Amino acid sequence: MKKIVKSADDNLVQASVEEALQTYETALNASDTDTVLTVFASDGVFMAPNSPSTVGADAIRAAYNGIFQAITFDTELTVEEVVQVAPNWAFVRTSSKGHVTVNAIKQRVPDANHELFIFQKSDDSKWKIARYSFATTNPLPH
Amino acid sequence: MKKIVKSADDNLVQASVEEALQTYETALNASDTDTVLTVFASDGVFMAPNSPSTVGADAIRAAYNGIFQAITFDTELTVEEVVQVAPNWAFVRTSSKGHVTVNAIKQRVPDANHELFIFQKSDDSKWKIARYSFATTNPLPH
Repeated sequence: MKKIVKSADDNLVQASVEEALQTYETALNASDTDTVLTVFASDGVFMAPNSPSTVGADAIRAAYNGIFQAITFDTELTVEEVVQVAPNWAFVRTSSKGHVTVNAIKQRVPDANHELFIFQKSDDSKWKIARYSFATTNPLPH
Repeated sequence: MKKIVKSADDNLVQASVEEALQTYETALNASDTDTVLTVFASDGVFMAPNSPSTVGADAIRAAYNGIFQAITFDTELTVEEVVQVAPNWAFVRTSSKGHVTVNAIKQRVPDANHELFIFQKSDDSKWKIARYSFATTNPLPH
């Protein structure tokens, strides 16, 4: 994971959020749904392309199981900004770059995205993903 | 614009944010870049699919000019939630459904997305879009 943080109000928050993102990146590349779920709030919302929003841990688990069945990630997040807006709330912008392998046909293709996360500090003082939207930054295919 | 708001901490904030979203929806359907720009913070970030993030009013203006040259919208936003997290910060989740017309070939196709907005209250007490990420919810083409 790379860090190009342009604004952050609190080093402790930034470190905690970056730790969660590092856990997420590692879990993503390992197709590890259980660990992915540890960084989401229990009432989190995952807004992936080509699917309705998935709300809550059970739906998010099903979504990642489906994604990991279809594709295998080899990607790296770059943290563009961490902005704390309240004691228990921060938002984070990242970009990601790497490859995904389409499992059914073993085809490995370049992958690039930008991600917008809203993090909430949970009761156990861990920062967790409350809302997460992303989209590809690859140009439209012609 | 439809409203299915499940949580909102402050009716005034909700009304102000919804007013901005209504302005955005109307401007989007009118291919009206000038009005779109009025609802963005001057240092806002627009994270559209198939393009790198656009940062700041000038880049956002260029992005919408490009989008409106390529496609014409006929879409309706549905507000799923408005959550105020600080005096000057709120986030909003919407979905949208309608059609877009690809101008070059006059082809009208169904369009559906989900959107995550971070709103910031500006110095003139208007709520403006500080960050905005969205993605299609249409299934992957086969």
